[in-house]
Amino acid sequence: MAFEKIKDSEAFAEFIEAYKSGGTYREPVGFGIARVDRGQKNSEKILQATYPTVNWCENYGSAAVFMASLEESGVTIDTSGSEFVTGISREFIDNAKALFAPYLEEAVGEAHKNVQVIKAIDNVIALEEEGETESFRLVFLFADAAPCSVESVYLKLYALSLGKAPLRGLNLDGAFGILENVAWSGNAPIELAWLRENEIMLKVDGVYPEITSVDKFPRYLQHVIPADNTRILDSSKVRMGAQLHPGTTVMPGASYVNFNAGTTGPVMVEGRISSSAVVGSGSDVGGGASILGVLSGTDGNPITVGQNTLLGANSVTGIPLGDGCIVDAGVAILAGTKVVIDTEEFKKIKEANPDWDAQDTDVFKGAKLAGLNGIHFRQDSISGEVKAFRSTREVKLNEALH
Amino acid sequence: MAFEKIKDSEAFAEFIEAYKSGGTYREPVGFGIARVDRGQKNSEKILQATYPTVNWCENYGSAAVFMASLEESGVTIDTSGSEFVTGISREFIDNAKALFAPYLEEAVGEAHKNVQVIKAIDNVIALEEEGETESFRLVFLFADAAPCSVESVYLKLYALSLGKAPLRGLNLDGAFGILENVAWSGNAPIELAWLRENEIMLKVDGVYPEITSVDKFPRYLQHVIPADNTRILDSSKVRMGAQLHPGTTVMPGASYVNFNAGTTGPVMVEGRISSSAVVGSGSDVGGGASILGVLSGTDGNPITVGQNTLLGANSVTGIPLGDGCIVDAGVAILAGTKVVIDTEEFKKIKEANPDWDAQDTDVFKGAKLAGLNGIHFRQDSISGEVKAFRSTREVKLNEALH
Amino acid sequence: MAFEKIKDSEAFAEFIEAYKSGGTYREPVGFGIARVDRGQKNSEKILQATYPTVNWCENYGSAAVFMASLEESGVTIDTSGSEFVTGISREFIDNAKALFAPYLEEAVGEAHKNVQVIKAIDNVIALEEEGETESFRLVFLFADAAPCSVESVYLKLYALSLGKAPLRGLNLDGAFGILENVAWSGNAPIELAWLRENEIMLKVDGVYPEITSVDKFPRYLQHVIPADNTRILDSSKVRMGAQLHPGTTVMPGASYVNFNAGTTGPVMVEGRISSSAVVGSGSDVGGGASILGVLSGTDGNPITVGQNTLLGANSVTGIPLGDGCIVDAGVAILAGTKVVIDTEEFKKIKEANPDWDAQDTDVFKGAKLAGLNGIHFRQDSISGEVKAFRSTREVKLNEALH
Repeated sequence: MAFEKIKDSEAFAEFIEAYKSGGTYREPVGFGIARVDRGQKNSEKILQATYPTVNWCENYGSAAVFMASLEESGVTIDTSGSEFVTGISREFIDNAKALFAPYLEEAVGEAHKNVQVIKAIDNVIALEEEGETESFRLVFLFADAAPCSVESVYLKLYALSLGKAPLRGLNLDGAFGILENVAWSGNAPIELAWLRENEIMLKVDGVYPEITSVDKFPRYLQHVIPADNTRILDSSKVRMGAQLHPGTTVMPGASYVNFNAGTTGPVMVEGRISSSAVVGSGSDVGGGASILGVLSGTDGNPITVGQNTLLGANSVTGIPLGDGCIVDAGVAILAGTKVVIDTEEFKKIKEANPDWDAQDTDVFKGAKLAGLNGIHFRQDSISGEVKAFRSTREVKLNEALH
Repeated sequence: MAFEKIKDSEAFAEFIEAYKSGGTYREPVGFGIARVDRGQKNSEKILQATYPTVNWCENYGSAAVFMASLEESGVTIDTSGSEFVTGISREFIDNAKALFAPYLEEAVGEAHKNVQVIKAIDNVIALEEEGETESFRLVFLFADAAPCSVESVYLKLYALSLGKAPLRGLNLDGAFGILENVAWSGNAPIELAWLRENEIMLKVDGVYPEITSVDKFPRYLQHVIPADNTRILDSSKVRMGAQLHPGTTVMPGASYVNFNAGTTGPVMVEGRISSSAVVGSGSDVGGGASILGVLSGTDGNPITVGQNTLLGANSVTGIPLGDGCIVDAGVAILAGTKVVIDTEEFKKIKEANPDWDAQDTDVFKGAKLAGLNGIHFRQDSISGEVKAFRSTREVKLNEALH
Repeated sequence: MAFEKIKDSEAFAEFIEAYKSGGTYREPVGFGIARVDRGQKNSEKILQATYPTVNWCENYGSAAVFMASLEESGVTIDTSGSEFVTGISREFIDNAKALFAPYLEEAVGEAHKNVQVIKAIDNVIALEEEGETESFRLVFLFADAAPCSVESVYLKLYALSLGKAPLRGLNLDGAFGILENVAWSGNAPIELAWLRENEIMLKVDGVYPEITSVDKFPRYLQHVIPADNTRILDSSKVRMGAQLHPGTTVMPGASYVNFNAGTTGPVMVEGRISSSAVVGSGSDVGGGASILGVLSGTDGNPITVGQNTLLGANSVTGIPLGDGCIVDAGVAILAGTKVVIDTEEFKKIKEANPDWDAQDTDVFKGAKLAGLNGIHFRQDSISGEVKAFRSTREVKLNEALH
C-alpha cells in the first residue's frame, strides 16, 4: 500500500508510461490540489478553494503520479464523469513523495510546481494524521462540462484568470448555483449563517470581523499574482475569473472587470468590462465607459472590442467593435441606435472593411455596424444626429486575408 | 438594591405587568445596548455605537427589565425627553440577569436576543467592576425627534439598515453634526486629532494604521449582516443607514447607496442611489446610472423609482419614476428636461396611467411626467429630440383602484 | 567624531549660523527622514518611503543640524546634484540629539517635529547598532529637478499631498519609471517577484496575504492625515500625491483623484479628477462626472475648474472652466465640441468675461470657451443642439482688475 522511492528520472518516466497504459488513467483537461476553506457552521460546505498551482492541458506526468498515489492509498478513482474530486491523506502525500523522489530537491522557483505543492503539504499536515485531511482537496477535470463542485468551479476560474484558457472558452453553466454567498473578511470566507448565530457574542466582545464584501466570488487578487507591468488600483474592481493581459491597468474610479471578461493585450481600464466582454490590445476603456455584458442589454451576444480602440469617458457600447474605433465621450451605441453615415464616409469605412456587406444608405442600425474597424461614433452637437465617420486611428488590415 | 431571581415565566409576566403600571415606565420607540468606541484622545467622545441587537417597536418586556434594572442599580431614568442614554454597571447586569432568570438557558440563536446580550456582557465585564463600564451604553428612544446623541443616531441607522423602519421614515435632523468625522481602520474608528498627535511615533515605529476611510458614518457591513441572497461586492459602496432588501446586488463599479436610501425589493445596483432615493422590486440601476438625491439636484424632493424599471447605463434620473419604465443608456431626465410625446404614445401612456392629469401637447417638462408608469425615455439619434414612449415593460395596474 | 551637547537655544543659534556659513551647507528645497520598506527579495530596492514629517522651504536650522550630524558621523555630503539621499546611523542620531539638546524636552505635539523624529528613531534603533540602519533614509532635495530616487519621489508626493507645494508645481518627470510596481497588503508593499516565489508555500500554509491593490503608488490615506472636515469614504479613491483642500469630500461611487490633481477649496467630489486637473473652492464634481487629464484627451493641457462650478452627473469636461459654470448632467464639452450661443446670451457671457476676446458668431468650438466664467452648458432636448448660456450662478469679478 506504499510506493517505494523512485530512483531517477528514467525510472520515473517508466513508471508514468506503465501507469498511463494501465486501467485507471484518463488524461485530465485540468487538475490541481486546493487548500479549501470550510463552513464555520457546516464544515461539509466548501466556501473557497485556493490553488497553489493549476495544471491545464499540461503536466500529465504529475496527473499520473496523483492518480497512482490516490489508488495506492486506497482511493477508487471514478473517471467516468466530467470531474473527480477527493480528499487527500498522509498516505497519498507519502506515495506522491516516493514517486516524485528524483525531483524533490530541484523543485524550487519555476521548476516542478506540483512537486513543490506536495513538499509544502508534507510540511503542513501532521506526520501521524489519520484519514483524509480537512484542508486539502484534489480535483481532476476530465471534460469541460458544467461544473459539479465548488472545487471545479474554482479550477476553471483559475484557468481563466491565469490565461490558461481563453475567455468565454469554458463551460461555467450553473457556477452561480454551486458557489455559496459568503461574507469575505479579507481572504477568508465566512458563512452568513454562522455570522448571524454569533453576532451578539462577536459584537459584545468587540471582535466582529471586518467584512470587505459579500459575494459568491472572491477577488482576482486573492488568488492571482499579476504580471510586473499590470496594475489594479483597487482589488474590489476585478472579480476572480477575470483575465487581465500583462500591461493592463485597472483604475479605481468607475471601473470593473467581471468574471469571464477582460483584456487580451495591454489595456487602460477606467470603465466597466461586463461579464463575457473582451477588450483587445492597445484599447482604452475611458472613465465610466460601459461595455454591456450578456446579462445587461446585449441579448446574450458577448461583446468583443478590437485593438487600438478608444471608448470615451461615460460612453456606452452595446455592439462589438473592431480595431481602431472611437466612441466619443458620452455617446451610447446600442444595437438599435440609428446611426447616420454620409456617402463620403461610407466609402472610407468600406475601404477599411472590405468584407462589410452593406449598401450605402443614410441610416444604419447599430447592429449593422457590429465589428467594423476604424469607425468613429459621435453625436453632432449642432444637429443632435449620431453619426459614424472613418476614424483617424490606424487600422491594420490583415493583408493575408485580402 | 438587587432583585431576586425570578422563578418562572409567570412570575416574569407579573413583574413586567406591575412595573409597566408603575411610575417610571414609558414605552420606547426603540432601545438597545451598544458597545461603544471612545476617542483615543478624548474618551468622553463616543465615536461609534455597535448594537448586538436592536429593538424597534417591539420587545417591551425587555425594555421594562432594562428600566427596572437601571432603577434598582441606582440610576434615575428621565423619560421626559425624546431619548435617554446611560452607562450600565455590574449591578445593572446582575439585576437584569435576575429578572431574565427564566430565559437565561433557552436564550440562544433567534430566541430572546436581549437576554443573550445580557449574558454576553456578563461574560465580558469583570465581576468586581465598580460603577459604569466604559464600553457599553443603554439607549431608550421615546419619540422619533431629532437625535441628541451618537448612540441614538446609530440606533436609528440600525433601524433603517435592518429594515425595521421605512426609508425616509425617521427624523435624522442634525445627525451629521452629532457624528464625529473619524479615520476608520477596518471596524475601528480613530480620532483624527489622536492620529495627528501620534503620527511621528507611529510612522517611525512602522505601525501606522491602515486607514480604509475617513467619514462620519461607518459602512453598512460593519454593523449589518445581509440576507443570504444579498450581495455587496465592495463594502465601501453601502453606507450605514442604507436599506437593502433581500436579493439586492450591489456591484463594485460606479455604484453607491447612501444612508437613508436603498431598495424595497430585489434590485440590481450598478449605479448611484443617492441619499433619500428608493428603488422598487425588480428594477435595475444600470452601470453608472445616477439617481439624484435631496442634496444633489432634486430641490429637496426625494426620488422614488418604481418596480420593474430599468435605468440604462450612465443615465441620470432627476424625477420620480413609476413601474415598468425605461431610461435609455446615457439619457438624462431632470425636472426641467423638455420631453416630446407623440399623440399615439400619449394615448398609450395615459392608458397605463388613468389618473394622470394631463392634456395632449407636444412637449412636457420632466416634472410633469414624475411618477408615471410604463414610460420609455430615449433620445432620438436622428433628430436629437428627447422623447417619451409607452415602454414595452409590463405595468401591473392596481385593479382595486380602477 | 561626536558633538557635545548644546547648552541652550542661544548656543544652538550660534552653531547653526556658523555651520551655514561653512563649506558644506546648501539650502534645501525639501528634506526629511523616511522610514523605508525594502524588497523582500531584493533588499536594495526601496519600495516605499514613509515620512513622519516633511520640510518644504522651511526649518533650515534642522537641515543644518542634519547635515552637520551626517558629516560628524563620517558621511560626505554631495550638494552638487539636485538631491542627496543617504542612510543614517546611531552616530548620526547621537550627534543630532546633542545639537537638538535644548529642544528635546519641549518637542511634543506641533512643536519641533524634526526633533521629535530624532527622539522617536532614537527609541527604535538599538543603542549599539553599527553602521547604517536599514530602515531609515535621509533625503535632501536641493533643486526641483527630475527625481532620481524613490525617496525623493515620495518627498515630492508628500509636498503635494500636504499642500506644501502647489499642484502641477513640481517636477515629477520619470517618477513612474522610478517607482516599483508592488502588491500592497494594507500599508505594506510586497515585491511581486517575492510573492511569485513564495506563492505555493503561502497558499498551502493558508497565509497568503490580503492584497488590496497592485500599483506603483500608495494611497493618500497611507501617508496623509486629512483635515477634520475632509472626508474620503474609500481610501482607494485618492492616490498619494493628490491634494485635497480642507472641507473636500470624496464619495465612494465613481470618484477618483489621481496624483498631482485635486482641490484648492472645499469641493464635493463624486466624479473623476484626472492627473493634473484642479478644482476650485465650492465646486461640485457630480456623480460620475469626468474631468479629463493630461494623459486622457486634453492634448497635454491640464484642466482647471474654477470656483462655485457645477459639473452635472455623468458630464465630461475636456476644457478648463471658470467660476460659476454649470455643465448639465450627461453633457460632454471637449475642445472640439461645437457650441451654439445665441446673441442675447453672448452679450451676457461677455459681460461676465470682459477680457474674452471673441466676436458674436453662432457657433463656437469648446476650446474657444476655455476658462470663461458663468457659462451654463446644456443640450437642448428638442433640437439636440449643445448650447451655452449665461449661468444663474454668481460670478465674482475681480474688481481690482476691471
